[in-house]
Amino acid sequence: MLNNKFSSQLLEKAVTEIGRLPGIGSKTALRLALYLLRQEEGRVEALADSLVEMRKGIRYCRVCYNICDNDLCEICSNPTRDAATVCVVENVQDVMAIENTMQYRGLYHVLGGVISPMDGIGPSDLQIESLVERVRQGGVSEVILALSPTMEGDTTNYYIYRKLEETDVKVTVIARGIAQNDELQYTDEITLGRALAGRIPFGN
Amino acid sequence: MLNNKFSSQLLEKAVTEIGRLPGIGSKTALRLALYLLRQEEGRVEALADSLVEMRKGIRYCRVCYNICDNDLCEICSNPTRDAATVCVVENVQDVMAIENTMQYRGLYHVLGGVISPMDGIGPSDLQIESLVERVRQGGVSEVILALSPTMEGDTTNYYIYRKLEETDVKVTVIARGIAQNDELQYTDEITLGRALAGRIPFGN
Repeated sequence: MLNNKFSSQLLEKAVTEIGRLPGIGSKTALRLALYLLRQEEGRVEALADSLVEMRKGIRYCRVCYNICDNDLCEICSNPTRDAATVCVVENVQDVMAIENTMQYRGLYHVLGGVISPMDGIGPSDLQIESLVERVRQGGVSEVILALSPTMEGDTTNYYIYRKLEETDVKVTVIARGIAQNDELQYTDEITLGRALAGRIPFGN
Repeated sequence: MLNNKFSSQLLEKAVTEIGRLPGIGSKTALRLALYLLRQEEGRVEALADSLVEMRKGIRYCRVCYNICDNDLCEICSNPTRDAATVCVVENVQDVMAIENTMQYRGLYHVLGGVISPMDGIGPSDLQIESLVERVRQGGVSEVILALSPTMEGDTTNYYIYRKLEETDVKVTVIARGIAQNDELQYTDEITLGRALAGRIPFGN
């Protein structure tokens, strides 16, 4: 739509690069570039450096595959966390979301996605084998499946469950039900059905 | 709202820097940072370099104050453009918008904003004196005011008009009327009133 005639090739290049980011259109890219032009040189360098340093320096925890700065992430290396419980999540945002609840004291295992044949993602593209190996090595008593409640998430849950059957680890899945403050009448049938089926004694 | 616990300080720093950009919230910043993490190192460096190079290398045309890579912008240094006509605009996006119409063959003068006492922007913060000086030096027969049809734009138009009165340059303002494909019944009264007052002979 926007067939810009740039008066500066430096500006055009920056707009092109910014516009390659997901969800950033050409108009937003131009707006951001012109904003950066008005900032002090040091601020633009700080932004640029932070991106390159992150990309170059980032590592994945050798135990849970969470993003971290060292060989072992802060959660895995924290002796006060419960190493016998492993929560399986899709990505690093999910780790953050669960950490923000302050309700979980165990460790994680970041799969890096879910099984999705439509997107060409199979079990071997994910950290499933490493999870099974981690459980096999002992010390883990419970694996909590905390994937998204989608078909892909359910498929992945089932795949992991079957893989872990050979071990004697307890496999649980996070509760599905109506969300806090949701209105019952607007809740979809599957969620409401699951919430009924998964009812627990009052006062728990 | 999002009180993220980052497992990586490198990631946290990048998210903080990205989140400083206007219109980019903390969730979008995290999404962009994680996207960049998945890209090849060269791509992240290309983005970072383009920002720093733009900020360091960009210059403003000494005649029209448009953004450019040299001392004189491509438009001002183009001998086929009509140097006797100068179109006054607020910023570089407006130059692009007018260039995209392919209807204008004259030169520009980029003010860098409009007079806005509420934002503390006075005439001396804008390239108005340089415009007057440019006209005084001769060779300009028409100054076209193409600022936004807002109170600030109108104030700036009037200020420039008064400043140019001492010269014998012709000062015009771009037409205001109903926009192409706008529905008459939904057009506001001021616009419709101006469109009526500014009517021209049919067939022009």
